[in-house]
Amino acid sequence: MKEDSINALLNPKSIAIVGASATPGKIGYSVIKNLLESKFSGSIYPVNPKDDVILGLQNFKSVSEIPGPVEAAVIVVPAKYVPGVIDDCGKKGVKGLIIITSGFSEVGDIALEDQIVKQARSYGMRILGPNIVGTLTNSTKLNASFAPYLPLPGKASLITQSGALLIAIDAISYTRGVGFEKLISIGNMSDVDFADLITWLDGDPFTSCISLYIEGFKDGRRFIEACKKTNKPVIALKAGVSTHGAAAAASHTGSLAGSSKVYDAAFQQAGTLRATDLNNLFDRTLALSLQPTMKGENMLVLTNGGGVGVLATDAAEKYGVPLKFAPEDVQAELKKHMPDYGSAKNPVDMTGMAGNDWYYKTVKFSYAHSWVDGLVVLYCETAQTNPEEIAKSIHKAISESGVKEKPVTISFVGGERSDKAMRWLVENGIPTYNAPDLAVNAMAALREFHNLREIVNHKAYKSSSNGGVVARKIIAKARKDGRGALTEIESKQVFAAYDLPIAATQLSTSEDEAVALAKKVNFPVVMKIVSPQILHKSDAGGVKVNIKDEAGVRDAFKTIMVNTKNYKAEAEIHGIAVQEMAPWGTETIIGSVNDATFGPTVMFGLGGIFVEVLKDVTFRVAPISESQAAQMLDEIRGAPILNGARGEAPRDKKALADVLCKYAAMIYELQDEIAETDANPVLVYEDGKGVKVVDARIILKSK
Amino acid sequence: MKEDSINALLNPKSIAIVGASATPGKIGYSVIKNLLESKFSGSIYPVNPKDDVILGLQNFKSVSEIPGPVEAAVIVVPAKYVPGVIDDCGKKGVKGLIIITSGFSEVGDIALEDQIVKQARSYGMRILGPNIVGTLTNSTKLNASFAPYLPLPGKASLITQSGALLIAIDAISYTRGVGFEKLISIGNMSDVDFADLITWLDGDPFTSCISLYIEGFKDGRRFIEACKKTNKPVIALKAGVSTHGAAAAASHTGSLAGSSKVYDAAFQQAGTLRATDLNNLFDRTLALSLQPTMKGENMLVLTNGGGVGVLATDAAEKYGVPLKFAPEDVQAELKKHMPDYGSAKNPVDMTGMAGNDWYYKTVKFSYAHSWVDGLVVLYCETAQTNPEEIAKSIHKAISESGVKEKPVTISFVGGERSDKAMRWLVENGIPTYNAPDLAVNAMAALREFHNLREIVNHKAYKSSSNGGVVARKIIAKARKDGRGALTEIESKQVFAAYDLPIAATQLSTSEDEAVALAKKVNFPVVMKIVSPQILHKSDAGGVKVNIKDEAGVRDAFKTIMVNTKNYKAEAEIHGIAVQEMAPWGTETIIGSVNDATFGPTVMFGLGGIFVEVLKDVTFRVAPISESQAAQMLDEIRGAPILNGARGEAPRDKKALADVLCKYAAMIYELQDEIAETDANPVLVYEDGKGVKVVDARIILKSK
Repeated sequence: MKEDSINALLNPKSIAIVGASATPGKIGYSVIKNLLESKFSGSIYPVNPKDDVILGLQNFKSVSEIPGPVEAAVIVVPAKYVPGVIDDCGKKGVKGLIIITSGFSEVGDIALEDQIVKQARSYGMRILGPNIVGTLTNSTKLNASFAPYLPLPGKASLITQSGALLIAIDAISYTRGVGFEKLISIGNMSDVDFADLITWLDGDPFTSCISLYIEGFKDGRRFIEACKKTNKPVIALKAGVSTHGAAAAASHTGSLAGSSKVYDAAFQQAGTLRATDLNNLFDRTLALSLQPTMKGENMLVLTNGGGVGVLATDAAEKYGVPLKFAPEDVQAELKKHMPDYGSAKNPVDMTGMAGNDWYYKTVKFSYAHSWVDGLVVLYCETAQTNPEEIAKSIHKAISESGVKEKPVTISFVGGERSDKAMRWLVENGIPTYNAPDLAVNAMAALREFHNLREIVNHKAYKSSSNGGVVARKIIAKARKDGRGALTEIESKQVFAAYDLPIAATQLSTSEDEAVALAKKVNFPVVMKIVSPQILHKSDAGGVKVNIKDEAGVRDAFKTIMVNTKNYKAEAEIHGIAVQEMAPWGTETIIGSVNDATFGPTVMFGLGGIFVEVLKDVTFRVAPISESQAAQMLDEIRGAPILNGARGEAPRDKKALADVLCKYAAMIYELQDEIAETDANPVLVYEDGKGVKVVDARIILKSK
Repeated sequence: MKEDSINALLNPKSIAIVGASATPGKIGYSVIKNLLESKFSGSIYPVNPKDDVILGLQNFKSVSEIPGPVEAAVIVVPAKYVPGVIDDCGKKGVKGLIIITSGFSEVGDIALEDQIVKQARSYGMRILGPNIVGTLTNSTKLNASFAPYLPLPGKASLITQSGALLIAIDAISYTRGVGFEKLISIGNMSDVDFADLITWLDGDPFTSCISLYIEGFKDGRRFIEACKKTNKPVIALKAGVSTHGAAAAASHTGSLAGSSKVYDAAFQQAGTLRATDLNNLFDRTLALSLQPTMKGENMLVLTNGGGVGVLATDAAEKYGVPLKFAPEDVQAELKKHMPDYGSAKNPVDMTGMAGNDWYYKTVKFSYAHSWVDGLVVLYCETAQTNPEEIAKSIHKAISESGVKEKPVTISFVGGERSDKAMRWLVENGIPTYNAPDLAVNAMAALREFHNLREIVNHKAYKSSSNGGVVARKIIAKARKDGRGALTEIESKQVFAAYDLPIAATQLSTSEDEAVALAKKVNFPVVMKIVSPQILHKSDAGGVKVNIKDEAGVRDAFKTIMVNTKNYKAEAEIHGIAVQEMAPWGTETIIGSVNDATFGPTVMFGLGGIFVEVLKDVTFRVAPISESQAAQMLDEIRGAPILNGARGEAPRDKKALADVLCKYAAMIYELQDEIAETDANPVLVYEDGKGVKVVDARIILKSK
């Protein structure tokens, strides 16, 4: 039923315009004019209290007066009248509300926005907006917006959180030749959000690629889940990635912007491609809407100019698909279509001597060759060749090859004739760009999307232990004591309940007990103060390490007690923890936050300078799969350390990935209780020898 | 006189085309046709052995037959005939040779190329090429090339190592509206190179900005010196920055490509701006050829769309000119030209309500305000505004402000109407781009160029000591012994001769001598084997540290002798070095290479994982100024370590910068002798406490 309502929003058969106007320049006039000019075939009903006819259409005093069914209503009346209109629509049985009107949460009136959503829901209606430009659909000729015309037809659909951009993109579609099936303005996302629309577009036969301009999500997890479920490429331009930018985004849409690194993780987990800027969004949209993905790693570059070939080579490395030399047999064949001083390696440089015939033959051969997983064809405009003919030769070779499911991208570097030829190629289904690096970037996107999809639906690790029961008991006790954090011992008990490998630690409340415990865990040991009021134990003189015998234990017990009393006399002392002294290993850190947008999110990094100086950490929204954990270990800058840099044996990455999975499962399960956690340090031993969590901290959610 | 020859190449008053042809399609025909069609006002003399008239011009059998003076000759005959033509030209008194003919070093015939250069020089002639497209000059209507027409007129001059790109750029100049005064194809650079042309263009009143497409230099230092001397902006697109790309570049032009990091350093030292790709080269060229530099750090962004404002904010941070909020008085004034829900902070969002008048008023006010150092104006096409009128309003405001020497860049995001308005703005001197990040990138270039020029001519440190005399004696002795490297002790003697602070180290040849030396440098000491055949001293058991007393010295002496004999019985033992044990400090590494393109080049990095795992090092071509040394310390990723991360006191950066300057001066002075050096570790102490070079190595050039 909800799906049905979204259908009514995007593809209605009948539409009312509430706030219709007979005055040119008014939005209530423009929307009707646009619906008429776009040749929308459904019923159009202007609604306002005074007119009889608007733009040749019968006007109605209210929605309820309309004789036939009304699937959607475009609302443009001032904000204060919107609640009344919603009731009117609800009673009529309208399914979707396209609320163009502004003056809601974006100017601080959150209450009014909440009210209209509640109201609409009570009638089973969905809201697109408020504060939007409207929505445009090429396949049904629907321009329910104040953007002046439908965009150039195409296979991509774009959802944007900036209305101004929608209007600009509408115009750009024609000048750059990037076509769209739908342009949807999402505004304040009071109800319908990115996730709803992505899910709906997944079933839309006219959409092959979904492009997004995002300033912030309200519920990040719904976005991830929606993206994971569609096999259509989703490309996101996330604005507000800088500190200053994030602030601007928040004030602009009233939505919460999560930290840039958490967004990076979320897009990765959602299997969503990123665009670096507006032009990159168009460029990648063009490629992803027209071409299949690149399924292997061999990209071949054909060119008639060494210069653009070198630039393509640089770009290939920059965008993660470095060129490899083509095999001998491929080179031998290509050598036939170039002068002696050409190069058949990769990039394949046919030199400026290349004409229609060489392009035709090399493209036809390369595109069909099994070694080639993706083909990039470059052409530098010359005085001796005609770009239009070169374009036709390339297109003919591709068409005749009979090959399917292999991507090709093209770059023509030149003037007006090249621009014309490029436009023709795009119209014939081949993404073509005005610079070599752009053609390579587009191919890299086709490769990246393939790679993202490979692991996006791997199952996340789920805890099989009954750790939750144990953990909740410990947490309940701390809450009962009025504490907002667990002690180290309690934190470790929670970790242990989730099968995390902690350094054995037990609480002693007397010297004798400490000695007994030390003997149990074996010397040498570490001793640490346990007090809810002392979080920075070392600063308080509350930590002693490498204690080798009974005398040492007794001595440490006394010293720690004195030190901590001097440090904070009023501190409540639970006792002193006696812990096995874990042998040296590579220091790492695991932690978590409960992100405002994405909820429980796990962090991983190497310890020491990596985390403190280089901020070399990576995030994933919990829970995570084994392959995601493995990616985390590989994507930090210090990754070589784990692989055994500086002559050391490789570290136990398998055990570490396993711990990350369990950790993520833990914070996910306990998200209603836990705000933040730290496991620091987590020592990683050589391959096969596991991992040890030395210190632990759990901060509770305030309730 | 040489200057004069380059003038003859680029601005000849009379020109011969040797290899002229009456057959359309031949290069010897195209060049004459292009000279005629471009309406070159000087004399044009076709030369070939058979024709009488070509394209209406009298043909000559040889250059010497031409009656009047001939300043330049375009040569298009096959390579084997070029030497004969050069003699003919030389005898005639030709000054410059534009050799389009290919088939020289680029196909491996280095001998022929060397020969023609020698020949030309013997007549005092200079060569542009061979293997080029030719050269084009708008101000003198000279199209001495086989590119079909002169580019769109403009103030930038472009030199390219790829001929194919020249032809493409020629066409692109019209479609993108980026105008050029000159397009110069530089080909194999057998004689005239980038440095010669930059020096000449520095004096060219028609050129305000110099753009380069570079694959590699032959002599990198000449390039640096030429760039330093011009105050005109130089923008370089360096192709072949990837490993694979560098290989492609080398095979393409026969020039040597230095390592990417050394090129980065050289461009920095030359005060040269970089372009990341072809479009970025056009974009930055447009800005630098039309606008003054940005002299402060306050960039103000005006917009009518929140979305593009956020994208501009992200770009500002990415490109190193992060936005700051405008002062209260600026905000107060701007607030007058926007609705309540607009934002006057920065970006200044006038909202979609902004029309001509608001643009006019906000631009006029902001551009004239002293707080604003650079203004970026964004416009998102709307249905209610006319891009052309907005463009005129902005231009009017800028013109009327009376402000000079302050930069402005613009972005219009929209369709055909916006494209037209942008073209108009560019024609009226304001660089305008189709995406907000591009306008910000252009402004960032104007800022970066200002910053680069600030320090580019700071004096490099020059050694005042007579270290050279001492060093050369030590090196001579090693060479006499048939050695290719100095021992640690010798290396330290060289370092010390250049006032580098080494850990005191002396050679002992007996136990007693070792004891005496240890007492002299004070305990504790370090002892190390000194043998030309043992480079990895630790592996040989040839190092003992922290020796605290006489007994320890005697014991270490014996053990080291035994260990090294076991390790390599035939090794020649100079003795055992006794060294003061330097107290712990932050480990850094200084080193040098003698780069094939740039000569002696100094490297700096932090020790340990920074250099081994992260390759976190930076280079400068020697010698260097204090400000360059300071930049080196600041630009490594681990820079926070030197500033006192993790609760430590800041390190003695002043002393470290001083050591870097002295080190660079040393390797520069000894460049004829030294191939590579290492000072590793170099310990840096807290501020005011200096630096100590603990280990040293010098590898000699093979002679």
